[in-house]
Amino acid sequence: MSSEGLSYAAAGVDIAAYEKVLERVKPLIAATQGQEVAAGVGPFAGVYSLPGGGRLAASADGVGTKIKVAIAAGSHKGIGVDIVNHCVNDIACAGARPLFFMDYFATGKLDPPVFEQLVEGMTEACRDAGCALLGGETAEMPGVYALGDYDLAGFVVGMVEEVERERVRAGDLLVGLPSNGLHTNGYSLARKVFEGVPMTKKLADQLLAAHRSYIEDMRAVQWKAAAHITGGGIPGNLPRALPDGLGAVLDRSKWSVPPIFTEIQKRGRVSDDEMWNTFNMGLGMILVCDPNAARGARVVGEVVEQTGPDRVTIR
Amino acid sequence: MSSEGLSYAAAGVDIAAYEKVLERVKPLIAATQGQEVAAGVGPFAGVYSLPGGGRLAASADGVGTKIKVAIAAGSHKGIGVDIVNHCVNDIACAGARPLFFMDYFATGKLDPPVFEQLVEGMTEACRDAGCALLGGETAEMPGVYALGDYDLAGFVVGMVEEVERERVRAGDLLVGLPSNGLHTNGYSLARKVFEGVPMTKKLADQLLAAHRSYIEDMRAVQWKAAAHITGGGIPGNLPRALPDGLGAVLDRSKWSVPPIFTEIQKRGRVSDDEMWNTFNMGLGMILVCDPNAARGARVVGEVVEQTGPDRVTIR
Repeated sequence: MSSEGLSYAAAGVDIAAYEKVLERVKPLIAATQGQEVAAGVGPFAGVYSLPGGGRLAASADGVGTKIKVAIAAGSHKGIGVDIVNHCVNDIACAGARPLFFMDYFATGKLDPPVFEQLVEGMTEACRDAGCALLGGETAEMPGVYALGDYDLAGFVVGMVEEVERERVRAGDLLVGLPSNGLHTNGYSLARKVFEGVPMTKKLADQLLAAHRSYIEDMRAVQWKAAAHITGGGIPGNLPRALPDGLGAVLDRSKWSVPPIFTEIQKRGRVSDDEMWNTFNMGLGMILVCDPNAARGARVVGEVVEQTGPDRVTIR
Repeated sequence: MSSEGLSYAAAGVDIAAYEKVLERVKPLIAATQGQEVAAGVGPFAGVYSLPGGGRLAASADGVGTKIKVAIAAGSHKGIGVDIVNHCVNDIACAGARPLFFMDYFATGKLDPPVFEQLVEGMTEACRDAGCALLGGETAEMPGVYALGDYDLAGFVVGMVEEVERERVRAGDLLVGLPSNGLHTNGYSLARKVFEGVPMTKKLADQLLAAHRSYIEDMRAVQWKAAAHITGGGIPGNLPRALPDGLGAVLDRSKWSVPPIFTEIQKRGRVSDDEMWNTFNMGLGMILVCDPNAARGARVVGEVVEQTGPDRVTIR
């Protein structure tokens, strides 16, 4: 959830406590980073300059407590898709095409059909992204994971495509790429809201819709900066793609919020603020584009000079 | 725990069940791998040929239930060292120097001092290995991890140093690099053995001794192949460094087994077989060397034509 080249992400973490400890460890992390570590490329991925030329972008991710929904529904393939696409979208924000992916799967006791479904999902998403599943680690850790529980983390490495990207400025337009549900964020809240509600096939399908990959869409538009809308929602992620001093104004009539979010808000009586700061609310990726480049795309807002304390305004 | 370029590792998993499901998913994984994925370089790491030349080696690892010992002892820095060195040793077997490392840390509720200790350990080991801590993911997953519990996975990417490595043949010598304890394997068994035993500082220090990095030692010797001795012990890992048809004979009088192993065996009445197939038994890395190159090093055995079903004999 941080910035300044650290590209430490955080899923569902108490952000205040996390940022505090991150401040303390920042100098330690910085001391490991030489000039090979490119700063300022975008905080969604780490970028590393290879000795022989070229730059790699890498990202590590998890799928959070969406896993608990998958376990309850007995449906795991989508989780495999989720982890790959989450990773791949992160490095896409640094302008990178994925080369290879690796996974870390940990469980109390290996359940072969669950593992098989996860690999099916991961390999399908890897093929779609044109990246190799290069390997992984599978760990049985009884005593850490309860029977039936598991965790899945992913790691992707891509090659940055050396495209000249113009500087973001006020007046640039925001192009929104639609999500198809919660993707991999907000499940701790969503699970609370649906506690005690029978997990029907319809509800499971809505909650488990796989995290979309934006690789193809991002190739079709010429963009200057990109924000992957994950934990923290639009207000938490869009500023990571904007230079200091700039903010964004979004017009919520320009895209439709998927019904699952409306249902979560209604059923859980969740405040507007909490909804927007937790979920992607229908936009999984936001691209910052020159007005000329945004023609024909779904424009959802624009970049403005930042005036107040909030960098993102949603009207 | 597999071979043939998949480089899927397995920590503490029911190997028979795992190999069976791995057979089923192998074609799916293979379908994601083009000719950029180099096979036969060594199964401890995945190797990927870059479009512009050069080869990357990558590895994903966990630390297994050693984490439970760290939690019981309230000492976490070593776990940070463990995860980095485990990863770094794996890619060293493919002849790679590490470029960067990323972590995945998941917990029930973030405990800042624990996280800080882990980062201290990871950054210290990264500095020692000359690699950047490029980023990571931190996830709070209540309901998956019990309060106080956590898991830590690591991913490393290195550049393969293009050194001509001669083919391993019968008559080559095995050079053993000493471990300083269990490293990151065998903790499910070790914890069972010490169940109910008070966790004294001495016991905690022995059990938590950090996984050694072999980068420097491996630069000092000209080797043909290398086996990182992790889960499965010497019999489970040394064959991964040997071509088909070759086996190894080790002379256990050539190195000393650290006292912690003797204590585990005695206290738990563990069979010799189980000890050797679970723990590194004092050797954390075994290098296969031409007899000329092994001069002056600690020779612990030699490569032989395989005759019986067992590829590794320890005398």
